Amino acid sequence: MKLIGMLDSPYVRRVAISLHEWGMAFEHDALSVFRHYDDFKRVNPIVKAPTLVLDDGQWLIDSTLIIAYLEDLAAARGLRSLMPRGPAARIQALRVIGLSLAASEKTMQIVYERHLRPEEKQHAPWVARVTEQLQAAYRTLETAVSAQALDSGDTLTQDGITAAVVFRFTQHMLGDTVPGFRLEDYPTLGAYSRIVEQRASFVQTPLD
Amino acid sequence: MKLIGMLDSPYVRRVAISLHEWGMAFEHDALSVFRHYDDFKRVNPIVKAPTLVLDDGQWLIDSTLIIAYLEDLAAARGLRSLMPRGPAARIQALRVIGLSLAASEKTMQIVYERHLRPEEKQHAPWVARVTEQLQAAYRTLETAVSAQALDSGDTLTQDGITAAVVFRFTQHMLGDTVPGFRLEDYPTLGAYSRIVEQRASFVQTPLD
Repeated sequence: MKLIGMLDSPYVRRVAISLHEWGMAFEHDALSVFRHYDDFKRVNPIVKAPTLVLDDGQWLIDSTLIIAYLEDLAAARGLRSLMPRGPAARIQALRVIGLSLAASEKTMQIVYERHLRPEEKQHAPWVARVTEQLQAAYRTLETAVSAQALDSGDTLTQDGITAAVVFRFTQHMLGDTVPGFRLEDYPTLGAYSRIVEQRASFVQTPLD
Repeated sequence: MKLIGMLDSPYVRRVAISLHEWGMAFEHDALSVFRHYDDFKRVNPIVKAPTLVLDDGQWLIDSTLIIAYLEDLAAARGLRSLMPRGPAARIQALRVIGLSLAASEKTMQIVYERHLRPEEKQHAPWVARVTEQLQAAYRTLETAVSAQALDSGDTLTQDGITAAVVFRFTQHMLGDTVPGFRLEDYPTLGAYSRIVEQRASFVQTPLD
């Protein structure tokens, strides 16, 4: 199978790290949905990253659904699930993943506002709304992950991976440039990010 | 449990229809993320619909993750899965859900551009990009669902539900107002929408 998309996208990155964690072989094509729009369109006319092209040529989109497919594949191959077992732990993991995806969406909306339209087309009330949601997402997420044991680095789980790659993305794209949002307010997420990135050194080169 | 959010959102609606399909009891609080922002914030500070509040007061966000939780709950209660069995059918369902969510996202981006910012802040190149992606999503989705047997109405599946509620949303919010996008080009999706809505009559009243 082939994973299409830039590894600086947290959605692409959580799939890549999951694949690596399972030891599943995959090709990677680092197409950008912006800089390589026409090339991307030839694979997937919707131009959405990640796109996972299966060996029969079919493709899937949406990182959570791609990971659901990979969980099926892992089960069929006798590999462990990246989701914790037990109802309470699963709810907690789904909660952390949902909060992480919300934080990612809000980061993306601020990035799109800044980079995809000229300054005179940027709309301050929209940015203010999204910024408030971004802060709320990170405050809730930091509390949710603080209540858990940190991933040891031996057994990464999907919630830990997702929280880590999303925090890395916000750090990289926004840093401390959003009024009222300071990275240092989220020390547990910072620690998650460092642990997961140590494991993800295989994807560091194409990023920087 | 309590489902928070307006039923005109396809994300809220797919959760409501899934709950109904399983026969799971739930309360519903039709808060809008725009008109009831402050009320919504008291439940979930991120103000994201759907929010599913569990009986212990914890809450989950992201419709796909909420449905993953409900699938766990259904399994624990001996209820059927809304996902088809068998690897090939599951891949096809994940593909249809992913295409549907992309069509929904692109619809939402056009709606947000039109309704959440004044005309002088709307950015034509962004709308053109998203419109092309919307068309591609619907063309691919119509082909994907045409290749399947239509849901009989007796056993709705998650892919059928999601495709149906997303098409209804686009129909309602955009109609034929997007240049080059015509609802009549997607007859199978129109049929899906009618079948699912017949089953979803329980949620029609608060909508209209």
